Amino acid sequence: MYEERIKRSGLQSRITSAADAATHLRDGMIVASSGFTKAGDSKAVLKAFAAIAQDSPRKITLITGASLGHGTDGMLASAHALHKRSPFQVDPILRNSINNGEVLFNDQHLGESAELIHENILQPDIAIIEALMIEEDGSIVPTTSVGNTVAFATAAKKIIVEINISVPLTLHGVHDIFSAGIWPNRQIIPITNAGTRIGRTSIPIDPEKIIAIVITETTDSPAAINERDDKTRAIAGHLLQFFEHEVKKGRLTHQLRPLQSGIGKVANAVLEGFTEGSFHHLTMYSEVLQDSTFNLIDAGKMDFASASSITVSQDCYQRLMRNLEKYKPNIVLRPQDISNAAEVIRRLGVISINTAIEFDIYGNVNSTHIAGTRMMNGIGGSNDFARNAYLSIFVTQASSKAGAISHVVPMASHIDNSEHDVDIVVTDFGLADLRGLAPRERANVIISNCADPAYKEELKDYFLAACKKGGHTPHLLQEALSWHQRMEQQGSMKKENILQDI
Amino acid sequence: MYEERIKRSGLQSRITSAADAATHLRDGMIVASSGFTKAGDSKAVLKAFAAIAQDSPRKITLITGASLGHGTDGMLASAHALHKRSPFQVDPILRNSINNGEVLFNDQHLGESAELIHENILQPDIAIIEALMIEEDGSIVPTTSVGNTVAFATAAKKIIVEINISVPLTLHGVHDIFSAGIWPNRQIIPITNAGTRIGRTSIPIDPEKIIAIVITETTDSPAAINERDDKTRAIAGHLLQFFEHEVKKGRLTHQLRPLQSGIGKVANAVLEGFTEGSFHHLTMYSEVLQDSTFNLIDAGKMDFASASSITVSQDCYQRLMRNLEKYKPNIVLRPQDISNAAEVIRRLGVISINTAIEFDIYGNVNSTHIAGTRMMNGIGGSNDFARNAYLSIFVTQASSKAGAISHVVPMASHIDNSEHDVDIVVTDFGLADLRGLAPRERANVIISNCADPAYKEELKDYFLAACKKGGHTPHLLQEALSWHQRMEQQGSMKKENILQDI
Repeated sequence: MYEERIKRSGLQSRITSAADAATHLRDGMIVASSGFTKAGDSKAVLKAFAAIAQDSPRKITLITGASLGHGTDGMLASAHALHKRSPFQVDPILRNSINNGEVLFNDQHLGESAELIHENILQPDIAIIEALMIEEDGSIVPTTSVGNTVAFATAAKKIIVEINISVPLTLHGVHDIFSAGIWPNRQIIPITNAGTRIGRTSIPIDPEKIIAIVITETTDSPAAINERDDKTRAIAGHLLQFFEHEVKKGRLTHQLRPLQSGIGKVANAVLEGFTEGSFHHLTMYSEVLQDSTFNLIDAGKMDFASASSITVSQDCYQRLMRNLEKYKPNIVLRPQDISNAAEVIRRLGVISINTAIEFDIYGNVNSTHIAGTRMMNGIGGSNDFARNAYLSIFVTQASSKAGAISHVVPMASHIDNSEHDVDIVVTDFGLADLRGLAPRERANVIISNCADPAYKEELKDYFLAACKKGGHTPHLLQEALSWHQRMEQQGSMKKENILQDI
Repeated sequence: MYEERIKRSGLQSRITSAADAATHLRDGMIVASSGFTKAGDSKAVLKAFAAIAQDSPRKITLITGASLGHGTDGMLASAHALHKRSPFQVDPILRNSINNGEVLFNDQHLGESAELIHENILQPDIAIIEALMIEEDGSIVPTTSVGNTVAFATAAKKIIVEINISVPLTLHGVHDIFSAGIWPNRQIIPITNAGTRIGRTSIPIDPEKIIAIVITETTDSPAAINERDDKTRAIAGHLLQFFEHEVKKGRLTHQLRPLQSGIGKVANAVLEGFTEGSFHHLTMYSEVLQDSTFNLIDAGKMDFASASSITVSQDCYQRLMRNLEKYKPNIVLRPQDISNAAEVIRRLGVISINTAIEFDIYGNVNSTHIAGTRMMNGIGGSNDFARNAYLSIFVTQASSKAGAISHVVPMASHIDNSEHDVDIVVTDFGLADLRGLAPRERANVIISNCADPAYKEELKDYFLAACKKGGHTPHLLQEALSWHQRMEQQGSMKKENILQDI
């Protein structure tokens, strides 16, 4: 059985159940698992481990590519089975355990997250890897994501493979597996355009390390489809208008430069916006291929898309899997230290579009923390791209919760992407081009173009009062975080609420 | 005259006085000038312009490589001759003008500062370039820094050359001039070790753009010599001990990896510490060569050093210039977009050591702003290195001004290098290795190892109270910046001062 999927002789005898395989995960172990933006994650063994831990307490440190699907992180957190988690997560139950201090979370740049392993700070005991198949030489062909699997397969002492028979074998060939090696002998990453292929199609491993093979047939968790609304449409409109302006100025052509877009309805709406605009021969050098990517390919607008994973809706997944031979010449999946490599992002001049939780009047971006303290998901790849992109763009709605929260604030309550790494900020009210501007200039254009009118006057007042006090980046320290304090105390950033209480 | 220095025929007739040359600088112009860490800067024309502006008001935007020497920035600020300045400065008079809002300052990553020019956001009207000589083909050989001169020479409509005859011609050959090109056709930067030479020894320009040549003979401003004191010695000691520990763990060899060190007495003391330790065959991939570099070369400890400038004491300058043929095989000067290139820093696995103004209990670093508002110098190259280094280290004294200021604070009042980019923090009290740690773990080790004992209890109290409130990164927003407010109001961060006042 499974001769097509397990070509290495002798390995078929290692097929076992998820429950059996999960017994290899012992208390205190460091476990590495495939999975990036809910794609190509462990479908069976981690869940089986959560079930075991529920009855018989044990904890592991879990490292992945990025987020897992199917509520696996939540099950592990509910079973109190996680000591530490890195480098990213999106699960509401796990998030709660992180914020109440039960689970330690190491929030890392995704493009760097393999380095603690390469540098022997962390040594995974076991790696769990979802695979399309195992080749004759024992090498592993991943499924819908590559993530950190190359590093995990190299460093782990033992490997459990989950062969997912729901993923068609025609996916074979979409991966480009390359390692730049480890210090002090790192090599050049010779990618000079989004489509350059530099590696092989499977991940080399020592097959003797495979201690168990589990057969699964569960597909990836589908991406939620967020219909464009008026706000996301407005943000996309401002950005498209900006790109047209840059073309007129001669700084860009209608081909733009390779695009990166974070996950999120705003970023997705912007990409969808390109299906209608005058842009063409677009390329993508990103970390995730989303519905919009395939829509742009189908619309004849996008020539090539490179990423580390495919995270799409159920409909798009079916369309893709049924038409793989058609899409394969246009896409590639890379390890996340290549998809997010500073070297390549800078060389290609990527246009990077990510979602902010909030930004301040000087252009500092909070990508992770509610009110400076409570983790949402993690920095992800946002700063891998923002730090090295040609254009680093952050988008958010100007206000939310019926206006109770302003996403343009006097001082960001946490800073993941500093003013130095932020070129353009956009809300539904407008766009601020910060390139070449000093802080006082930035404040003027951000307040005037991006803030919700309901908060504009107070932002202006704050800025003017701070300017009177002086400084290169004027602030009133006693008021700088007061909007967040009001939010915590009264459920709204609005000053009026204080007056009402008096 | 000056046949040895001006080899291009026809250019000698363009020799003129600094005062004459300075008349080309008109009100509202964008002027680019050589100069990086006070090395290879304009010695005559900018000063002559300041003198003109003193009598007859006019303002320019001034872009350089980094800081200028000889009080030039101060003269320009005093003459109210600056509209905007970028990307870095260290002058107390200019700093004051920046902080009172008179001069706009665009504080930029040094490795990226040429990009606004390449991308046609800023177009210099005139470039002023200090040169060792002009070659037959009109190309310019720089002096003690390369900085942004390649970009300036390419983009400026007109060029004024200052031939500095005080710099010996034997410096010729020390430069390695390379451009990766501009988007969308950027090339690989093929440096695979600190010593790789990839370019030519002079900067190609169109000689028709040279509108004036000024002869100068003023040497660079010497670097201040900061004797090691007990605190810097203690910091250096902690770091050397850490490196020995990493060697024992097998993560490093005694050769370490290419070193980068910012300017500052602490960073310099650390490098000097290597002359005594068991480390050898060291290399440097940095932005500035300092006294310690040449001391390490002389001590047989350092094999090669790459940077964008040479900024040394008067004694070291004499020693270097008299023995250039000896040192030349061991050093190279590169454009700052190459010395500070993300691509190369990451590939080589640089060990980066920079000075912090303060860091917080979670490892966020403020490199630029006093009390979150008043600019000191600028981010410089610190984040070019910290973001992409193998090890990103920040050093500072635990407290200063007789203990009135703690440099370990609850929340950094400005963030230039986020927790994600900081691996190691060190004070005279100790070192905290933050790799792989979650925020609550980081707080424990930073408070315990790095804080001044006089502030330790209050930091612990803050952290514990914040943990009770919860969150991945626990903070009390109403108290987070209170130490800086106390400093502003009472001249000390100490809580006791409040009690004394009551």
